[in-house]
Amino acid sequence: AYAKIDTARTQRTGYPEVIYGAGKTAQQIVGIVQAMEKRQQPILVTRVDLEKSAAVQEILPELAYDQTSQTLVRTAHALPAVGNIAIVTAGTSDMRVAEEAAVTAELFGNQVTRVYDVGVAGIHRLFAKLPLIRQANVVIVIAGMEGALTSVVGGLVDRPVIAVPTSVGYGTHLNGLTPLLSMLNSCSAGISVVNIDNGFGAAYNASMINHLVKEEQP
Amino acid sequence: AYAKIDTARTQRTGYPEVIYGAGKTAQQIVGIVQAMEKRQQPILVTRVDLEKSAAVQEILPELAYDQTSQTLVRTAHALPAVGNIAIVTAGTSDMRVAEEAAVTAELFGNQVTRVYDVGVAGIHRLFAKLPLIRQANVVIVIAGMEGALTSVVGGLVDRPVIAVPTSVGYGTHLNGLTPLLSMLNSCSAGISVVNIDNGFGAAYNASMINHLVKEEQP
Amino acid sequence: AYAKIDTARTQRTGYPEVIYGAGKTAQQIVGIVQAMEKRQQPILVTRVDLEKSAAVQEILPELAYDQTSQTLVRTAHALPAVGNIAIVTAGTSDMRVAEEAAVTAELFGNQVTRVYDVGVAGIHRLFAKLPLIRQANVVIVIAGMEGALTSVVGGLVDRPVIAVPTSVGYGTHLNGLTPLLSMLNSCSAGISVVNIDNGFGAAYNASMINHLVKEEQP
Amino acid sequence: AYAKIDTARTQRTGYPEVIYGAGKTAQQIVGIVQAMEKRQQPILVTRVDLEKSAAVQEILPELAYDQTSQTLVRTAHALPAVGNIAIVTAGTSDMRVAEEAAVTAELFGNQVTRVYDVGVAGIHRLFAKLPLIRQANVVIVIAGMEGALTSVVGGLVDRPVIAVPTSVGYGTHLNGLTPLLSMLNSCSAGISVVNIDNGFGAAYNASMINHLVKEEQP
Amino acid sequence: AYAKIDTARTQRTGYPEVIYGAGKTAQQIVGIVQAMEKRQQPILVTRVDLEKSAAVQEILPELAYDQTSQTLVRTAHALPAVGNIAIVTAGTSDMRVAEEAAVTAELFGNQVTRVYDVGVAGIHRLFAKLPLIRQANVVIVIAGMEGALTSVVGGLVDRPVIAVPTSVGYGTHLNGLTPLLSMLNSCSAGISVVNIDNGFGAAYNASMINHLVKEEQP
Amino acid sequence: AYAKIDTARTQRTGYPEVIYGAGKTAQQIVGIVQAMEKRQQPILVTRVDLEKSAAVQEILPELAYDQTSQTLVRTAHALPAVGNIAIVTAGTSDMRVAEEAAVTAELFGNQVTRVYDVGVAGIHRLFAKLPLIRQANVVIVIAGMEGALTSVVGGLVDRPVIAVPTSVGYGTHLNGLTPLLSMLNSCSAGISVVNIDNGFGAAYNASMINHLVKEEQP
Amino acid sequence: AYAKIDTARTQRTGYPEVIYGAGKTAQQIVGIVQAMEKRQQPILVTRVDLEKSAAVQEILPELAYDQTSQTLVRTAHALPAVGNIAIVTAGTSDMRVAEEAAVTAELFGNQVTRVYDVGVAGIHRLFAKLPLIRQANVVIVIAGMEGALTSVVGGLVDRPVIAVPTSVGYGTHLNGLTPLLSMLNSCSAGISVVNIDNGFGAAYNASMINHLVKEEQP
Amino acid sequence: AYAKIDTARTQRTGYPEVIYGAGKTAQQIVGIVQAMEKRQQPILVTRVDLEKSAAVQEILPELAYDQTSQTLVRTAHALPAVGNIAIVTAGTSDMRVAEEAAVTAELFGNQVTRVYDVGVAGIHRLFAKLPLIRQANVVIVIAGMEGALTSVVGGLVDRPVIAVPTSVGYGTHLNGLTPLLSMLNSCSAGISVVNIDNGFGAAYNASMINHLVKEEQP
Ligand SMILES: Nc1ncnc2c1ncn2[C@@H]1O[C@H](COP(=O)(O)O)[C@@H](O)[C@H]1O
Ligand SMILES: Nc1ncnc2c1ncn2[C@@H]1O[C@H](COP(=O)(O)O)[C@@H](O)[C@H]1O
Ligand SMILES: Nc1ncnc2c1ncn2[C@@H]1O[C@H](COP(=O)(O)O)[C@@H](O)[C@H]1O
Ligand SMILES: Nc1ncnc2c1ncn2[C@@H]1O[C@H](COP(=O)(O)O)[C@@H](O)[C@H]1O
Ligand SMILES: [Mg+2]
Ligand SMILES: [Mg+2]
Ligand SMILES: [Mg+2]
Ligand SMILES: [Mg+2]
Ligand SMILES: [Mg+2]
Ligand SMILES: [Mg+2]
Ligand SMILES: [Mg+2]
Ligand SMILES: [Mg+2]
Repeated sequence: AYAKIDTARTQRTGYPEVIYGAGKTAQQIVGIVQAMEKRQQPILVTRVDLEKSAAVQEILPELAYDQTSQTLVRTAHALPAVGNIAIVTAGTSDMRVAEEAAVTAELFGNQVTRVYDVGVAGIHRLFAKLPLIRQANVVIVIAGMEGALTSVVGGLVDRPVIAVPTSVGYGTHLNGLTPLLSMLNSCSAGISVVNIDNGFGAAYNASMINHLVKEEQP
Repeated sequence: AYAKIDTARTQRTGYPEVIYGAGKTAQQIVGIVQAMEKRQQPILVTRVDLEKSAAVQEILPELAYDQTSQTLVRTAHALPAVGNIAIVTAGTSDMRVAEEAAVTAELFGNQVTRVYDVGVAGIHRLFAKLPLIRQANVVIVIAGMEGALTSVVGGLVDRPVIAVPTSVGYGTHLNGLTPLLSMLNSCSAGISVVNIDNGFGAAYNASMINHLVKEEQP
Repeated sequence: AYAKIDTARTQRTGYPEVIYGAGKTAQQIVGIVQAMEKRQQPILVTRVDLEKSAAVQEILPELAYDQTSQTLVRTAHALPAVGNIAIVTAGTSDMRVAEEAAVTAELFGNQVTRVYDVGVAGIHRLFAKLPLIRQANVVIVIAGMEGALTSVVGGLVDRPVIAVPTSVGYGTHLNGLTPLLSMLNSCSAGISVVNIDNGFGAAYNASMINHLVKEEQP
Repeated sequence: AYAKIDTARTQRTGYPEVIYGAGKTAQQIVGIVQAMEKRQQPILVTRVDLEKSAAVQEILPELAYDQTSQTLVRTAHALPAVGNIAIVTAGTSDMRVAEEAAVTAELFGNQVTRVYDVGVAGIHRLFAKLPLIRQANVVIVIAGMEGALTSVVGGLVDRPVIAVPTSVGYGTHLNGLTPLLSMLNSCSAGISVVNIDNGFGAAYNASMINHLVKEEQP
Repeated sequence: AYAKIDTARTQRTGYPEVIYGAGKTAQQIVGIVQAMEKRQQPILVTRVDLEKSAAVQEILPELAYDQTSQTLVRTAHALPAVGNIAIVTAGTSDMRVAEEAAVTAELFGNQVTRVYDVGVAGIHRLFAKLPLIRQANVVIVIAGMEGALTSVVGGLVDRPVIAVPTSVGYGTHLNGLTPLLSMLNSCSAGISVVNIDNGFGAAYNASMINHLVKEEQP
Repeated sequence: AYAKIDTARTQRTGYPEVIYGAGKTAQQIVGIVQAMEKRQQPILVTRVDLEKSAAVQEILPELAYDQTSQTLVRTAHALPAVGNIAIVTAGTSDMRVAEEAAVTAELFGNQVTRVYDVGVAGIHRLFAKLPLIRQANVVIVIAGMEGALTSVVGGLVDRPVIAVPTSVGYGTHLNGLTPLLSMLNSCSAGISVVNIDNGFGAAYNASMINHLVKEEQP
Repeated sequence: AYAKIDTARTQRTGYPEVIYGAGKTAQQIVGIVQAMEKRQQPILVTRVDLEKSAAVQEILPELAYDQTSQTLVRTAHALPAVGNIAIVTAGTSDMRVAEEAAVTAELFGNQVTRVYDVGVAGIHRLFAKLPLIRQANVVIVIAGMEGALTSVVGGLVDRPVIAVPTSVGYGTHLNGLTPLLSMLNSCSAGISVVNIDNGFGAAYNASMINHLVKEEQP
Repeated sequence: AYAKIDTARTQRTGYPEVIYGAGKTAQQIVGIVQAMEKRQQPILVTRVDLEKSAAVQEILPELAYDQTSQTLVRTAHALPAVGNIAIVTAGTSDMRVAEEAAVTAELFGNQVTRVYDVGVAGIHRLFAKLPLIRQANVVIVIAGMEGALTSVVGGLVDRPVIAVPTSVGYGTHLNGLTPLLSMLNSCSAGISVVNIDNGFGAAYNASMINHLVKEEQP
């Protein structure tokens, strides 16, 4: 009787499997990946550091490691990229989270436009990129510090904005609580928020939205 | 030179104007509405209590007051309703926030499916409504207490979920911080979050997403 | 005059001694265990990592180490197992806490039913195990993330539920405060809560409750 | 298919219905009670102030109001009282919460032993009552201030203790967060905790536990 | 011996006396003002509501009340206005704090440029006013919500910025903690922060800075 | 002119110098001690770990290291011990803080009575020691977990109690905030509190109080 | 057997009874006072507002009401005043707490020296009063805002300082948490802290200390 | 069109570039510095530890490393020093932050007066230095613990004070939140605050203010 519920998530073909690598040993990751490999799906492991990735790759050389995003990926059977998701960051130190989002979005079959390092301390950088950002169906804004970039972008684009606070900062930054609170209280409408550093979650949401734009799919 | 930026939000015809009524006097609300009335647009004032609404209506009888959502609305020139947004609540006390979202969504030109009072304490209530919820392009989940409904819905539907924590609760509920934190840490993917009690913001987001589904528009 | 009070806890024969191993040196643990060994009781040391356990076992080889639960145990004189306690977890990363509870409960003379990895992101997993869970006299629910599993289980079973939040998560998870708050505000009745990661405490409570069911004792 | 789940809570005959009266109008309470009255069950409405109770009683004179516990009760069809639950409080200002627990427990078919005003500032008061407390199957400890009574009771009795922090205090009391944190970190084992001021929840839990002691039921 | 220290603040002629009116009775305010009136100085009482101001004015009709800033002022002997302080606000609800700052700054002998309602949700409003803002020696930025305006202004002007978070907001706004944290973590340099709603304090600082620009003084 | 102020603290002969060793290098500690050695005073360095102490002792062998209290001491010229300070702890893990207090108190010329490991989980242990504790002029109570011992002692003795919360605990213990809050809200009168783990501060206070009892001094 | 414990607090003749009036009705206060009046002791009721005091005095005209300290007192049988306690405040708004402390201390048999309104914004005021403060056996420092006065006093006197944070402030003052934290982290030694606004508690402590100075007693 | 905005910050000649070194690899720092070296400007890299500095200096030997301030500096083209900024610290452990401020201020063309280790525990140290401090145009006060020094200085000088809380402390110090809150609530006027440990930010602000004093420039 519950099989129908089951299919809701697990039999939805085409969606890649995503393994949260933090707090798992290399051995555990290998085990989970091997159990999955039968399925005709791309595979993504997030939050894997360099050392752990090497241990996994020794046994599973078909996985590619990307150090910036800290991900292990098997792109075979990846979905064709459709639509457009813009990923906008405030500073260079938001890059790890941004690339986690980008890698996830690409594997989930989305075209990604990267607009990095356009924080409001030098707002002209953002304006120069606005036309590019406005072509996207959905915009992911990633920012540490005070996260003001989110409100500025939200006021300038006409698309849903998914905000990701990052833990980049010190003192009263409170490990990311400050940009999180800032984003939840944005004076611009059209912004929703995910957990601190959750690039994966933002991309998952953005992908769902981007795929609603059916006519742009191949 | 900045006129182009200006148009991004203010010259975008068709979008209703929304006035945040809390902390404004009846007189101030009347003033703002009168300044707007020239434009061919629907008008929405949120967070207006009964007494204040009466004072406004004396001067502006064309505004209709809805006590549940605490809104004043002029529906003239409203957009035709397209697509579908499901609004799901955990308990009856989440109704004010839910109706704020519903009134907003309808005025912004969206069809709304209300699924109220299906909290997880009696989870069969939710399962009975699942087919209905799954027809929506985007789902708004509104919950106080611990907000667990969000995760359960997120795990059962294949559409973006926008979560709204409500301030309904006591003690360690911390005026809504508890469901907010709960929603940000959901074990289900595909969930993004707006501020506590922010029914308007959830509807604004959902409307943007729902309107991306172009072929369903009239 | 206070001897009577004393007996309330210490002369209650049969109850195993439990040592909290965190922050104690191997040497201190050995000392305490040796002072106890005269008594005809099982012995349990919690929160002992692999290295420390090896140092203890060198001197006390009669203690068995279990790496998942991070416990050292001497099962001699263990109580016969009666009744039934169900231990339900949301994810695989809750396992350390779950096994700390399980080892404690078993040593205290309770039958334990393990139902692991049935979090609400895939709720069908829980439903498949419900008949098993419903056979228990008391249910321990262990969850990190947002802890929503607790409310779902609480709404489906008719027995006392003891909830254990775990520190598994990141960002706004706040090292377990989020599921703790969530559990304290559950919309389901019949739930009480212990400290973050306190598998031992949950089992201690559950054992007391399970032993109240006298006719099921041998 | 889900009917079985439904019955888990709603068709369980004999259990009284409980309505949370805070934030409901007298009219809404009357409506809910009238919808229930067909069922052969006792009825309990919690968190009703004097004024609201009078308005309800005008229409439903069969409900009795108790000002200390702020409850409206229809005791017809109440369950026969079995076993024993001790309700222990630190101070007189914890009385509202204690009586909410007592009224709930009695309506759910439990014998209740009230031991009030035995806080640790004058610990001899507690010792004088210990023999009485030890006769209970389960002990509810209710305390504001720093909640130290919980740990002292927990160390002296051999039964499950359910702790209820109250919002009685000022300054760093933080509306009850201080005794809540204190209770969650008790040095005594066998204590679990419910939300601040949640007398109802403690009684619900205690009743479940007390009814497990089958042979003491009539 | 300490007389020298004394003069540092109290014998500095010309500086207006400022009375914090909140929590003082009309009678107490009258008493303090009367004790001061001998001195040849302007007088300022902040945080006085309409009712209290009327009671004070009955006895001291020489004080003028301003309802927006909630201040009572005697402008006799006011210092001549020099230099320029820009006061920039995000929204209309920040007006009370802004006018508290403006009234203070003017009484302390500063020219004030008001630039209100230029929040980043419609950033073109700010750009239109930039030339005006850039003429000031020091800029006060006042914002509720997420306070993003501060960072944008800080990145565009070359003068010290004093930021004032306001308590305007709801939910996770935490009565102004969110914009405070945001301002302390600004990605723009040159920003320092005062307490929530502290318009007086910002003006006091700004006045000190503005008066350092000696050649612009008359 | 300020010399009089100076003497208030620095020329008060007989009081030992105390150096806070945390965050200072061995070299810095040596430098400060050498600058002091001319004065005829005992010397105390707190918060020095084993390794750092060895480096200091190489150059200053006249300092004795105590590993439990993590202190380096030169007892030459120590004050004669007078009166009596009782130091009472809840558990063995509070020992480092307790010994920091004891070493400080002894060096400051106080007799110290140690009453360790008498936490309320087994309250009879405390009662057995009460006559001893009641002989002191002032009582220091040191406790982690929920700090309930403080309230129990406060209710049983007739002397000032100085409470020291310790950082011993986990989860909602919040690194000592829980016992701190508990102690500040004690239902017993006569308790004042110092910072978490501040054994030194408690002893400094207690010594001041103990020395007020003049006739007990030699 | 426990009678001895009992006497520790209740049979200690001479100590006045103190009733915490907040949250008690006039009727309850009357009841408690009447039960006490047989004993030959002074009586003190704290936290009683004007209206409630009038209701109590109608029945018990022998109680005197003091509006500043919000206390009701019967001074008959008061203890003779000995020694000296200095009560030092930062501002005039700390007066209610200061007078609660003063009234308590006087009723408990202590001479009190009031030194009010000497906050550090004008530090010469404090220096002028130092000789007076230094004559006390113990000093109570009461301050709102940032509580800096405590550290300055602590560095200038050679007696135990008991610090009382007050709830006077706004915004980040957090209802007194800011001065509380400030006082707990004072760079001056010899300071211990009681709960926010707890004038009574400070006086209770100070009285205990002041009475240790035996030779100064009559 | 946006070039004009750009110039606001980047074409402002003379202002040194500042690189935030924390979280950047030596390689990344080298890359950024090399890209800058064409410009005729001094270069400053903050928050560089010893090891990282050595790696940078191997490639860029023209950078000088200062271990106290943890900065790498190229002073070529430094601005001539004008005016005067006083940097005042409470304790020796605030030195890293103070020197970060001093190095920044000097590179930005300001004369700096260092007044270190004058905390209020021994307030005579501050008074001895007051004449020196009063010569500055702007005062930076840096303090950990409870930050009381800020209020004392603010009450004694007639210039803008920029306060920097430091993370030096333990327990309830909360990594610097305590002095931050203390500084924001100062009873002295004329104080504004920057983020915890943000010596750079304080110096940037102070430099802006100091340069407003035009006639004192060479
Ligand atoms: N970086 C990430 N952040 C948050 N959630 C993640 C991340 N990576 C994977 N997940 C989620 O974690 C789930 C897998 O968790 P696990 O079973 O512990 O590997 C996936 O289905 C995703 O929903
Ligand atoms: N005082 C109370 N505190 C907490 N929960 C309560 C209380 N009274 C009733 N409840 C719960 O609230 C539910 C009813 O909520 P409602 O439908 O809003 O009346 C009941 O089934 C109980 O589980
Ligand atoms: N363990 C400790 N905890 C708190 N304060 C201490 C401690 N040890 C020393 N102190 C204080 O720190 C001062 C010395 O600080 P410093 O100049 O940094 O060595 C002493 O005068 C004491 O007041
Ligand atoms: N120690 C510091 N604390 C805060 N901000 C800094 C610090 N050092 C540099 N910055 C700022 O950080 C900016 C450079 O950041 P980044 O591009 O990451 O190197 C500079 O323009 C400064 O505004
Ligand atoms: Mg937008
Ligand atoms: Mg989903
Ligand atoms: Mg249940
Ligand atoms: Mg127990
Ligand atoms: Mg700037
Ligand atoms: Mg006592
Ligand atoms: Mg002192
Ligand atoms: Mg000043």
